[in-house]
Amino acid sequence: MIERADAEALDRADPLAGFRDGFVVADAPIYADGNSLGRLPRSVADRMDALVADWGERLVRGWADWIELPVRVGDRLAPLVGAQPGEVLACDSTTVNLYKLAGAALDRRPGPVVVDVHEFPTDRYVLEGLAARHGVELRRLASDPVAGPQPAEVAAAVDGAGLVVLSVVGYRSGALADVAAITAAVHEAGAAMLWDLSHAVGVIPLDLAAAELAVGCTYKYLNAGPGAPAFLYVRRDVQELLRSPIQGWFGQREQFAMGPAYDPEEGIGRFMAGTPPILALAAVEPAVEVVARAGVPAIRDKSVALTSYAIELHDAWLAPLGFELGTPRAPARRGSHVSLRHPEGWRICRALIERADVIPDFRAPDSVRFGLPPLYTRFVDVWEAFDRLRRLVDDGVHLELAAAPFRVT
Amino acid sequence: MIERADAEALDRADPLAGFRDGFVVADAPIYADGNSLGRLPRSVADRMDALVADWGERLVRGWADWIELPVRVGDRLAPLVGAQPGEVLACDSTTVNLYKLAGAALDRRPGPVVVDVHEFPTDRYVLEGLAARHGVELRRLASDPVAGPQPAEVAAAVDGAGLVVLSVVGYRSGALADVAAITAAVHEAGAAMLWDLSHAVGVIPLDLAAAELAVGCTYKYLNAGPGAPAFLYVRRDVQELLRSPIQGWFGQREQFAMGPAYDPEEGIGRFMAGTPPILALAAVEPAVEVVARAGVPAIRDKSVALTSYAIELHDAWLAPLGFELGTPRAPARRGSHVSLRHPEGWRICRALIERADVIPDFRAPDSVRFGLPPLYTRFVDVWEAFDRLRRLVDDGVHLELAAAPFRVT
Repeated sequence: MIERADAEALDRADPLAGFRDGFVVADAPIYADGNSLGRLPRSVADRMDALVADWGERLVRGWADWIELPVRVGDRLAPLVGAQPGEVLACDSTTVNLYKLAGAALDRRPGPVVVDVHEFPTDRYVLEGLAARHGVELRRLASDPVAGPQPAEVAAAVDGAGLVVLSVVGYRSGALADVAAITAAVHEAGAAMLWDLSHAVGVIPLDLAAAELAVGCTYKYLNAGPGAPAFLYVRRDVQELLRSPIQGWFGQREQFAMGPAYDPEEGIGRFMAGTPPILALAAVEPAVEVVARAGVPAIRDKSVALTSYAIELHDAWLAPLGFELGTPRAPARRGSHVSLRHPEGWRICRALIERADVIPDFRAPDSVRFGLPPLYTRFVDVWEAFDRLRRLVDDGVHLELAAAPFRVT
Repeated sequence: MIERADAEALDRADPLAGFRDGFVVADAPIYADGNSLGRLPRSVADRMDALVADWGERLVRGWADWIELPVRVGDRLAPLVGAQPGEVLACDSTTVNLYKLAGAALDRRPGPVVVDVHEFPTDRYVLEGLAARHGVELRRLASDPVAGPQPAEVAAAVDGAGLVVLSVVGYRSGALADVAAITAAVHEAGAAMLWDLSHAVGVIPLDLAAAELAVGCTYKYLNAGPGAPAFLYVRRDVQELLRSPIQGWFGQREQFAMGPAYDPEEGIGRFMAGTPPILALAAVEPAVEVVARAGVPAIRDKSVALTSYAIELHDAWLAPLGFELGTPRAPARRGSHVSLRHPEGWRICRALIERADVIPDFRAPDSVRFGLPPLYTRFVDVWEAFDRLRRLVDDGVHLELAAAPFRVT
């Protein structure tokens, strides 16, 4: 399976192949960073045109529709994460949403916070601040950097904890957590579970029903644009128990009565803060619709096939050049990106971008990530990217580049 | 000056008249709610097209430019508020920015928080939550609903306080505070001053140098679009003394080193939280440029002329119909909107929109607000809006409408 013709055959048999035409795709570069920023769906470009025109024509009257966007987009997202309507809200950034939900959870039930040392930085930083503010311990789980946090490790760390925050898919390793087993272990210990879905939503079938809380972003596999508003999930039965620490007017019951005291809305709306950025939020809706049309199970099937193919090529071509797989080998334990570790990872990544027209990204200290979003990535793209990679490293092209401008240890 | 021809003569003499062509303006309606949502500048529509194309073509490489937007847009805003480069940041919502700055100020110097009972609701709600969390008193200044908070009232309330939060221009009354005198009184008492500039920025010459902190929105007189990202100001000498309670990765020094502990950036960047919504943030830059090109002093001159003209028409036509001016009469003490109070305000506002093609807005309990942004509002628009208003009320058209669907007391 390592000839280009094999990849071409896989593409011909791909039931999702037609979705690529729904995105803006040029001949070059080969794009393997859709897990940082997804490609532009044509329907989103159309929606942006319509929204800007709507602002110009309807002016403030547009708010009659726009004001529903956070809940309406949330309801569209809900089936993708195994949630019910009224449990998901599109708003703010992942960082601010994590702050709101983790803060609310700690207000309700103070106690040590468990987070993985390999958790995405913003999650670690937000929780470090909240733990200090609430005067509770921040317990750092030392999971394996490739395998990610395991249920037994979480179970061993969660005793007496108030809140556990983990990612469904690790941002660097691509490791896919055992969501059901970990959530059960956390609940067994009496703590609350908050999942970060950023690298999972839209590409991994999710069933959040057991977990109380989640946050996630929409600019990766949901393709909603650079810095697109994020989302949050609060299971219905705990909504009324929690209050956002940021008491904004968009979370106020009878918002336009503008009454004297804060009185949070019933339901998911209470987790809003300020006025949502409509130009960015409007893009999320058509972006989510593309994913919903393809269906996450079909996306997942192709995702597993793409990452399996990448690992096969790694083993054949790249392991002999000093690469090490930084992503779990078991298909059931990985998301939709593959990390290749190499001591010269930073320079190799730059060389791919600058000299080979292939765009992966780099994550400190040594991982070159190849994101393979199934809706627009072809098997031949994987073949071509890795073929260029092996030639580049074999020729030592990366050694011509300057070292990383920042500490990568 | 109450004939239509007088208004037409004022328009002919208006040095800013040409700016109206820079906005999307149809023949109808008469728009008097630009203080809620400014009109669409043509340059912003062009920028949105370019930005969406940029995303499609450059993909993640666009971040090389986009990542600078919060500071770059902040630097463009700085001269409009009398701040220096590196003191303003465009990000998040006004609500979240207020939470970050007021929270940081209370962490640094705990003490009672002073806010006006007529302050915009989100400010009151955020401060109510923060005061409770910090275990400090929330002192509610009972200012006059038309005149707004006076320096002597603030001086009398600020003893022992940690923080004072007030709006430069009142959202309902349009009252313009004496910024210099109030800031001095607050500092005399040893408290910190945080100004909300939402109804002032872009239409009132501002000199923030004395105040430590400010927040404001960009979708009113800056015309950056529905829910456009807001801004915050932190005077340079206090930046290093403060830490945002929301410790996000965009405020981290060496963000992409992704190190183990939160270590806030030097300078204004430390007040960032999560990934900014680029599609919405990009609109702010060309929007601000339009205002900068016109110049705030010239905008202010026309603003005073427009509001003076509106008050003249009110006195002649509307006072006899039961209206009462809800905005200060002294030009130096008001912003760029005029509030007319009437017991039937809510129905009158709806009738203007539904039956007369004039768009003001309503603020509980009894104020119909007429926002008069100088860059695209003509004197003839004021004449026409108030002429339709007096006919409508004289004919009792508003009495045909249903009562307000919410409590307006």
